[in-house]
Amino acid sequence: MTQQLGKFIVIEGLEGAGKSSAINLVKNIISQHTGQDPVCTREPGGTPLAEKMRDLVKIADESDPLCDEAECLLFYAARAQLITNVIKPAMSAGQWVLGDRHNLSSLAYQGGGRGLMPLVKAISDATLKGFKPDLTLYLDIDPTLGLQRASARGALDRIEQQHIAFFERARATFLEFAAQDDSIIVIDASQNIEKVHQDIVKQLTNVWAVERIN
Amino acid sequence: MTQQLGKFIVIEGLEGAGKSSAINLVKNIISQHTGQDPVCTREPGGTPLAEKMRDLVKIADESDPLCDEAECLLFYAARAQLITNVIKPAMSAGQWVLGDRHNLSSLAYQGGGRGLMPLVKAISDATLKGFKPDLTLYLDIDPTLGLQRASARGALDRIEQQHIAFFERARATFLEFAAQDDSIIVIDASQNIEKVHQDIVKQLTNVWAVERIN
Repeated sequence: MTQQLGKFIVIEGLEGAGKSSAINLVKNIISQHTGQDPVCTREPGGTPLAEKMRDLVKIADESDPLCDEAECLLFYAARAQLITNVIKPAMSAGQWVLGDRHNLSSLAYQGGGRGLMPLVKAISDATLKGFKPDLTLYLDIDPTLGLQRASARGALDRIEQQHIAFFERARATFLEFAAQDDSIIVIDASQNIEKVHQDIVKQLTNVWAVERIN
Repeated sequence: MTQQLGKFIVIEGLEGAGKSSAINLVKNIISQHTGQDPVCTREPGGTPLAEKMRDLVKIADESDPLCDEAECLLFYAARAQLITNVIKPAMSAGQWVLGDRHNLSSLAYQGGGRGLMPLVKAISDATLKGFKPDLTLYLDIDPTLGLQRASARGALDRIEQQHIAFFERARATFLEFAAQDDSIIVIDASQNIEKVHQDIVKQLTNVWAVERIN
């Protein structure tokens, strides 16, 4: 008998959208639904080598600033490594995988935010060859509110203000992809956390019920 | 008055083809021709961050082996970083750049050798957007002879033998691209070093003479 493939569920959202608590919630829901904990990944990263690639993205060297193209290629190098060595082997073994970000983040941040969509789409198509999550929960929030929550100060500093336009472009791209893809569910993350969690439970229950994913 | 752009010359070839001594020779020729030393680069690498990417390619972690796609993407991340922060600024300042390997190596080794040509071409096109060397000298050698020279033992060990087919596919790809591109000059590197150097001098003198590049 062939082992049933595990599913790949991803949580996406801007800073301050509440990804971490949503991940904990969804992890518990998956555990109850399948009887075992999912494999949890984060991107960029999630394997020893992919974590080293993540480190390179975060280096701020004024004499050798990371160019936009190299940043994008590093994200996909880390993603290819994670898919090949963690996500696909887990799914093949019947395990579910819960991802903290995946390809939609590259499309939104590098494609929409940085204006590199042709590059991102070309690399995404060539690298992933159609591989995608079974389900993505996108926690949608206005970037001003998200950054206020993330900074926990109630006001944005100069740098964060400069980035609002970047995050607004990223948000618009998240929503644009969600509108075209039934496997991406938008959750209103501007609500209080109890309501956000209720919505996540409701959406997942619906998905389970109609057997779009089970 | 607009500063004249510098030129980008690349030396390519399999292991044992004699790249290092050819680079020294061409460096001297360029210095004599232009009156100043070229900026010398190597790939992957050539900037602090690109060198760190090079390090990742060389890590051998049995628990997390670098997958082919991630290897290819890392090479291009390093290349994008080198082009953006070293090659283009030097050329814009009128300096010549002499490269130890460039894009043709990815096409030959990853595309031809590993059989990932569609991926390599897609990433190459999307990342480089037509940027290419003004001139490439490809030092052509039979991989068995090249590896014998490189190992300086006169016989190949088991691992090297296993790789002969890989290097043969890479060589075929180098030659295939050279046949389609006037800017790639094939040098017979199976000859003795004096004859190889004579051929390089002759080819570069021809190029200078007909002003294909000056």
